[in-house]
Amino acid sequence: MIEEALLEINRGTAEIIDIERIEKLLKAYFDEGKNYTVKAGFDPTAPDLHLGHTVLLQKLATFQKFGARVQFLIGDFTATIGDPTGKSATRKVLTPQDIAKNIESYTSQAFKILDESKTDIVYNKEWLDALGSVGMLQLASNLTVARMLERDDFSKRYASQTPIALSEFMYPLLQGYDSVHLKSDIEIGGTDQKFNLLMGRQLQKSYEIKKQQAVLMMPILEGLDGVQKMSKSLGNYIGVTDAPNDMFGKILSISDDLMWRFYELLSSKTLNEIADLKTGVSDGSLHPKSVKEALALEITTRFHSEDAANNAKSEFDKVHSKSQIPTDIPEFSCEGEVWIAKALLDCALEPSTSQARRDIKQGGVKINQEKVADEKLVLTTGEYLLQVGKRKFAKLKVN
Amino acid sequence: MIEEALLEINRGTAEIIDIERIEKLLKAYFDEGKNYTVKAGFDPTAPDLHLGHTVLLQKLATFQKFGARVQFLIGDFTATIGDPTGKSATRKVLTPQDIAKNIESYTSQAFKILDESKTDIVYNKEWLDALGSVGMLQLASNLTVARMLERDDFSKRYASQTPIALSEFMYPLLQGYDSVHLKSDIEIGGTDQKFNLLMGRQLQKSYEIKKQQAVLMMPILEGLDGVQKMSKSLGNYIGVTDAPNDMFGKILSISDDLMWRFYELLSSKTLNEIADLKTGVSDGSLHPKSVKEALALEITTRFHSEDAANNAKSEFDKVHSKSQIPTDIPEFSCEGEVWIAKALLDCALEPSTSQARRDIKQGGVKINQEKVADEKLVLTTGEYLLQVGKRKFAKLKVN
Repeated sequence: MIEEALLEINRGTAEIIDIERIEKLLKAYFDEGKNYTVKAGFDPTAPDLHLGHTVLLQKLATFQKFGARVQFLIGDFTATIGDPTGKSATRKVLTPQDIAKNIESYTSQAFKILDESKTDIVYNKEWLDALGSVGMLQLASNLTVARMLERDDFSKRYASQTPIALSEFMYPLLQGYDSVHLKSDIEIGGTDQKFNLLMGRQLQKSYEIKKQQAVLMMPILEGLDGVQKMSKSLGNYIGVTDAPNDMFGKILSISDDLMWRFYELLSSKTLNEIADLKTGVSDGSLHPKSVKEALALEITTRFHSEDAANNAKSEFDKVHSKSQIPTDIPEFSCEGEVWIAKALLDCALEPSTSQARRDIKQGGVKINQEKVADEKLVLTTGEYLLQVGKRKFAKLKVN
Repeated sequence: MIEEALLEINRGTAEIIDIERIEKLLKAYFDEGKNYTVKAGFDPTAPDLHLGHTVLLQKLATFQKFGARVQFLIGDFTATIGDPTGKSATRKVLTPQDIAKNIESYTSQAFKILDESKTDIVYNKEWLDALGSVGMLQLASNLTVARMLERDDFSKRYASQTPIALSEFMYPLLQGYDSVHLKSDIEIGGTDQKFNLLMGRQLQKSYEIKKQQAVLMMPILEGLDGVQKMSKSLGNYIGVTDAPNDMFGKILSISDDLMWRFYELLSSKTLNEIADLKTGVSDGSLHPKSVKEALALEITTRFHSEDAANNAKSEFDKVHSKSQIPTDIPEFSCEGEVWIAKALLDCALEPSTSQARRDIKQGGVKINQEKVADEKLVLTTGEYLLQVGKRKFAKLKVN
């Protein structure tokens, strides 16, 4: 059981620091039913989650299966702080109302993945405000300038003489102090957060918290292109509030490689179940498209409902089949109005007007992808896509 | 009048930034009677002032003569903050009681120089506490890491890989913010404070104070050796709580060069009066020693009283004349007890024992700098300094 838990916790991770601590926490849970805490921080300035953000949430949900209480940390302290230098265009000043609205939106999405009964939503403004001027200064005394400049992005900016505001040095410390206040056992975050996550460990030591948090880092999810990270600004994202049809369709559009990546990082299927799917695809008993459909159904169900997901699938199938139109359709034109049966004959779609009338009666003729019900229809000036059966197409321009 | 004020304000300064601002403030004072503020910060962790510290106070007193209200800033905010890294041995944590006691001692000394009615004692804990976590972070956003590392001592420490705690970067900002809060017109400090003094100007601009403070820097006073800076740890200092005799004597011990330096930086004599003294010394009408005595009297009077200073002078003269003993005194020895008159003859201080007896009767003979009253005195085993008149000395060892 503990082995299975460890496998699921390890699943898809980029790096784990202090796996021994995690093992001990799991052992205490399985042996004695003792719970432990897993912290993850969320920025309330951007209320729209996309699937990339949910990688962390999935991992938190996994931990919840195995005894964890999640410390769902809302970073509301810095959100109200503007950047007086105006150097950072990304940092907008939000009103408390904006933030409250964002948090509401954020958590309602998050609880589609997390178990609410095992989640504590916490706001760092509470204890960071209480730190006060003196507390901030004491916090700052825990780190050296040289150590801070070792952080990858800082060292690059310093070397290239790109200004680094002194306050930027404070943010990792504040994030670390959150772990001190919360006495977190584990913190999870993206690989880009490594420095800040380790800061939590360091500060817990400085502030004499008995045991330091283990750190688990998740990779950054790729976007629809399968190459760049999923991001709103790159337009390659699947938003968790995307309409069911969009969500379903976007997932079906990804490559097979990316599909397996999504299974690993986003699916609630177990590792064994995913292994079975892979076997099925490789021995030919499963079509990759149906595996992708199953993923799209799972994700769409998660953020909407099973009905919405099934409807999305039907709609997709319909649209998908509708859109099976060849790109090289022969084109015709004629002068004046024309009877539909005559038009089908002229465009070489039917051998005779009588055959055309029979096909129309049987529902086998479409104009602009809509079935023709009336065999006496007359086409007036305009352009038409004529179709007989599934395969025969022609374009007709009536002048 | 304004020209005289400017000369006195310039007197002894190492550097002035924005002299135009000072000229305008003086003009507004002389023309319209408008007052202005001059800020200086004092550290309440070291309650014992020495003359080096009073250089600033003298300059403040000069400003007070010309319309300034002094913002006597007690840096009590940082004084209560320990250094959790333990890296700085110099920073002691003080209790509020310690600080109150130090401040009491500090200001009672300072008001021997400053005009109390033109002085506002202000405590930066008041507004720095009120800044809070958010205010601290906003403050830190006003400066870049690169700019901070330009500061001389920081750049050296960074280059030599000597740790710089992040909190140390905050101190100049806090000092600068004091000037924002106080809307100071001028700040004065030592040359070693240049970076921090300029920070006040920069932050006043960031926080949209209409006019930025002018900055006036005083040199660091040399100690008794005339070479190294006056400092308690170097033992070359004159404490303002030194006993009158010590104070007087120490000042008389300094070189003539250092005496003129002390006149410039510590004396309340005007520049014209000092120029007269210099002329007197150079044309021989004044002995340098009497000029030095005048300085010693002025300083001792300032921190004690005129009576105490005069007593110190008398005492000094007495001790000083007693100690007029040449360094190359001939040495003699003899076996067994010896009559004083015989001893004086043997040591070639007298031509005969009868002459010796006459001189003893007239009080012209001393043993160990005490007059000999008894012409029948017998010297037993021991060492004696024999003296006849003012000039003749001998050392005698009786075995």
